[in-house]
Amino acid sequence: MTYCVAVKLKAGLVFLSDSRTNAGLDQISTFRKMIVYEKPGDRFMCLLSAGNLSISQSVREILQVEQLNDHEGGEPITIWNAKSMFDAARVLGSAVRHVYNRDGESLKRAGVDFNVSMIFGGQVKGEGMRLFQVYSAGNFIEATSETPFFQIGESKYGKPVLDRVITPDTPLDEAAKCLLVSMDSTLKSNLSVGLPLDMAVYEANALKSDRITCIDDNNPYFQMVRRTWGQKLREVFDSIEHPTWDGSPTDVPLMCEGSGRSQPLRKISTPKDKLI
Amino acid sequence: MTYCVAVKLKAGLVFLSDSRTNAGLDQISTFRKMIVYEKPGDRFMCLLSAGNLSISQSVREILQVEQLNDHEGGEPITIWNAKSMFDAARVLGSAVRHVYNRDGESLKRAGVDFNVSMIFGGQVKGEGMRLFQVYSAGNFIEATSETPFFQIGESKYGKPVLDRVITPDTPLDEAAKCLLVSMDSTLKSNLSVGLPLDMAVYEANALKSDRITCIDDNNPYFQMVRRTWGQKLREVFDSIEHPTWDGSPTDVPLMCEGSGRSQPLRKISTPKDKLI
Repeated sequence: MTYCVAVKLKAGLVFLSDSRTNAGLDQISTFRKMIVYEKPGDRFMCLLSAGNLSISQSVREILQVEQLNDHEGGEPITIWNAKSMFDAARVLGSAVRHVYNRDGESLKRAGVDFNVSMIFGGQVKGEGMRLFQVYSAGNFIEATSETPFFQIGESKYGKPVLDRVITPDTPLDEAAKCLLVSMDSTLKSNLSVGLPLDMAVYEANALKSDRITCIDDNNPYFQMVRRTWGQKLREVFDSIEHPTWDGSPTDVPLMCEGSGRSQPLRKISTPKDKLI
Repeated sequence: MTYCVAVKLKAGLVFLSDSRTNAGLDQISTFRKMIVYEKPGDRFMCLLSAGNLSISQSVREILQVEQLNDHEGGEPITIWNAKSMFDAARVLGSAVRHVYNRDGESLKRAGVDFNVSMIFGGQVKGEGMRLFQVYSAGNFIEATSETPFFQIGESKYGKPVLDRVITPDTPLDEAAKCLLVSMDSTLKSNLSVGLPLDMAVYEANALKSDRITCIDDNNPYFQMVRRTWGQKLREVFDSIEHPTWDGSPTDVPLMCEGSGRSQPLRKISTPKDKLI
């Protein structure tokens, strides 16, 4: 499986991906799922991919030379000359459709779904930053200030902390930290998500990034985050009062007659008792 | 959807269930998913159910009168006279199979899976406590000290805190608190899990329980847990150092040349660049 996540903030973009790929539990390998396309001063783009590896690798290969011909006689659009991230996302969608046209029918015959999903974000000179999630039909949606992040792959374990922390005003380094905590929860609960991680942090309007790093189990910062987060979560848990039952002197009883609007549960005590 | 969870500790058992049932997003209703079977001094059993509501309601109805005939001429086994929780779980499995025999074929014709899963635990006089997860084929597994909890329904959001806190030595009230935190994370992330909750806490060898309560949004303890957990989680997050990049004075750099064994990511900067 895979876990990839990206956020769009006022301050910039942050991308994070794991690198475990598996076909069943007995065939596990490491494939990087992030690619950065960069022409410093002109454009910065980052692509994260999940799903069937043969499809996502083909899409990535084709994407570099894919062309969209919008107007007859006009110059074809590629990710290298697109005037907007929206057009670049269309080129990516078109690359996905190319692979579908080539492989879709054969995969179907073999009983394999055409399964690929991607996160694609960045900035082209003259435009603001944009972040897209691209589906296996080549269609896509864009992140907004209400929903500033996208996740693909094993997304559930790592979502609660994103929901609690990420807003468009979150600073870049704080968002990077949040994504690493989100990844930690996912690594802890799903064996098919694994190290090393790739992280890219892009500062708004820089049109290039030097903050791209590969994080393996020797990384001192990620080691510290994993250790501290687990430890402190436990401390917070311990600091919350235990529940008490009727009659105990507390302001926050768990069981209290008449406080709730809902009926208490009836016990069944003979075979003839009927449920409500 | 549904979220139900139960733990088996040395000190006793704790059960928690939500009560939202939905058929699509436009048909949402409240059904209680917990039933307690109790003959004080003789047996205490608690059943949590998830899956297709018509199946789980039928299973619960049939369970009260279901009989297993192991030996010709011997007394049939019911949940009310079973000498062990294992036998009671077999009676439950048999009730599931009865419903399958009655409805399975028709459901299949209608394109509906025979989908039901249950958690069933308790204690019968003369035996220790036991906790089972029962599948839609009527087969079941038992919790052990290595895996002291079971979840059914929407289990992912609420699993990380259980993994971090629950061991067989966890005290009863602490486990009750942990299940409520687990439920809070699930409620926050999945709209199809909803209040009120039913909670049952069973003390080892009591053979009855007075700690059974229904928790709705007026419950002062649950209100306190939800507020405090969210707030303190945020404080913990803020207390962890932000990542820093090469050159910054810190003991735990995020990016540091040569510290990792993994190759840094290559950027693609022209259409002719080849991926590794």
